[in-house]
Amino acid sequence: MPFGDLSFSDPKFSGYLSSQQVLADYVSLINYLKDSYKVPSYQNPVIAFGGFYGGILSAWMRMKYPSVIQGALASSAPIWQFEGMLPCGTLYGAASHPYIVESMKCANSIKVSWGQLNQLGTSDDGLKWLTDTFKLCSPLKDVKKLKDWLNEVYVKIAMNNYPYPTNFPAELPANPIKVLCEHLPDPWVKREELLNNIFHATSVYSKMAASGKCLDLEKISEGDQETLAWDFQSCTEMIVPICDYGTTDMFERSVWNITEVSDKCFRKFKVRPNPGLAEMEYGGKNITWATNIIFSNGLLDPWSSGGVLKNLSSSAVAVVIPEAAHSLDLRFANKADPESVLSARKIYKKTFSKWIKQYNKQKSH
Amino acid sequence: MPFGDLSFSDPKFSGYLSSQQVLADYVSLINYLKDSYKVPSYQNPVIAFGGFYGGILSAWMRMKYPSVIQGALASSAPIWQFEGMLPCGTLYGAASHPYIVESMKCANSIKVSWGQLNQLGTSDDGLKWLTDTFKLCSPLKDVKKLKDWLNEVYVKIAMNNYPYPTNFPAELPANPIKVLCEHLPDPWVKREELLNNIFHATSVYSKMAASGKCLDLEKISEGDQETLAWDFQSCTEMIVPICDYGTTDMFERSVWNITEVSDKCFRKFKVRPNPGLAEMEYGGKNITWATNIIFSNGLLDPWSSGGVLKNLSSSAVAVVIPEAAHSLDLRFANKADPESVLSARKIYKKTFSKWIKQYNKQKSH
Repeated sequence: MPFGDLSFSDPKFSGYLSSQQVLADYVSLINYLKDSYKVPSYQNPVIAFGGFYGGILSAWMRMKYPSVIQGALASSAPIWQFEGMLPCGTLYGAASHPYIVESMKCANSIKVSWGQLNQLGTSDDGLKWLTDTFKLCSPLKDVKKLKDWLNEVYVKIAMNNYPYPTNFPAELPANPIKVLCEHLPDPWVKREELLNNIFHATSVYSKMAASGKCLDLEKISEGDQETLAWDFQSCTEMIVPICDYGTTDMFERSVWNITEVSDKCFRKFKVRPNPGLAEMEYGGKNITWATNIIFSNGLLDPWSSGGVLKNLSSSAVAVVIPEAAHSLDLRFANKADPESVLSARKIYKKTFSKWIKQYNKQKSH
Repeated sequence: MPFGDLSFSDPKFSGYLSSQQVLADYVSLINYLKDSYKVPSYQNPVIAFGGFYGGILSAWMRMKYPSVIQGALASSAPIWQFEGMLPCGTLYGAASHPYIVESMKCANSIKVSWGQLNQLGTSDDGLKWLTDTFKLCSPLKDVKKLKDWLNEVYVKIAMNNYPYPTNFPAELPANPIKVLCEHLPDPWVKREELLNNIFHATSVYSKMAASGKCLDLEKISEGDQETLAWDFQSCTEMIVPICDYGTTDMFERSVWNITEVSDKCFRKFKVRPNPGLAEMEYGGKNITWATNIIFSNGLLDPWSSGGVLKNLSSSAVAVVIPEAAHSLDLRFANKADPESVLSARKIYKKTFSKWIKQYNKQKSH
């Protein structure tokens, strides 16, 4: 945050936040560290690791700076989730998948709830009822705000659907989708009961059912500086189109409107998106020339839909992990890790060792 | 020049001039052109061409944007002429080579002249004599200024030592080193005669002997906006260390002092050099991963000493042209072109055709 609290106040400060700048910063950091440790640089091959945005950066860094890093492990890196590269409905489709697999009744409960929320959203009494039922801190004025929050919760729980309890990035029980779905056994109960079930189900994430606190939708959507940093980038180069076709998945139909996004970005950051930028800068789907990258994706992770699931070249390869959620492979080892994650980690070790040998061989010439 | 006359007045304007920005601009331009012509982009492989700085950019562009350009012809591109990559005496050594090959007496005349210029530079009478002899527009106060100009002329004539008369980048006769050296048949004539010969020799470039005009050393060293643009970049990332060991070549001994350069840059542009930047950004000598680049160098060109003279990989190859000066291969065809240039051009055509086929094959998958 080179400009502290001013960092996001104006494009003259925030303009420095670009993926190109981030990559160049990492190059400087690596050079600085090599100098600091005074170890000859040829003894120090560097391998980049990262999950999600960090995975995207790792892959891009190998693509742009193959002399600086010898290889990259890009875990859950949706490098193809950007404008122009895939249909906007893909993410919500993929996010529904683990719910449907867990229980068709659970997914259908969520699917049915949208219409009911909309019904209640049309009257003051309905909004009051939702405010009380969902323990909101301030009276709900637009039901869209609650629906946005629910959408986010369903996606986040799918991302963090790990086989053991976690504290990071969210505090969740083991297999949270399973726990959530236990609250949604029947989509055809009456409206108020179903929405009350939704409240208890999403409390797996919000903890509101058990706590005496209220749910502040404002605070959650505002976010901290880290969230702001991502929001800013999603307003310049990281344009992720998200919509829902409202047919085969559990989410409500929604459209993707670049003009609306652009106006929102301008209001918030005084910048407008450049939708083609990520593709121009990093090659989009035309990257068979890439080398020494492992793209790993868990198929339970909604973002795997924008990831690389097939080998690009002999050394830019895909590792698909059927039983993993978002970047499970990069978490600490756990007894509950599925076999497919253990195999993936063995592949990484073997591949890194190959890359290091390759590096030493090149350097000795 | 997005800020017109202000472009070089302050780093807040000039800061936008970086090779990274230039490459990104070309990517935008290519996209814009493809859109404008409304031809499906898969029918349009793009190959970058360039000489000298443009050759450096062409090679770097293929290295950074292999999805945007299918290959690059980097002619006379001294991508290894930067700080930390080669000894500072290399350029003057290479610039002496064609003079020595033309006539040892010619090279020795130039070698001897530096001491004589220094002798005359110590007295007012001597400076007056030099002012008159070299037809300078204003009285010479520091002999270094004249020596700097002579250095530049010798290097430029070596660069443009083409086998036919040229108007661009300078107006020169065919084989200008040969013509220049005809004025320098004997290094051991007395001082005033030798320096008068030097004046007539360098008039091949300056035209002062024949013209009624005077030589304005100020004007030449100030330069136009194009020169300023290069000067700025040579003060930020394009740090080309130049010195002379004063032993085996025809130039005067000189040292390379980064502190002096840095102070000069700060006075002129309010910026200081980042000597490691070019190597960090573009990989320095560790670029065996590069693909689809032809590095062509004429061995008569002083800058070939910082070029790629050996294949880097199976598709990033060196084409060495013994009889060519600076980027002769990129000039229009001429009857006087040596055989080695004709062969080089044939290799280019064949290689481009291979790249285009490769592109079409990839695209059809």
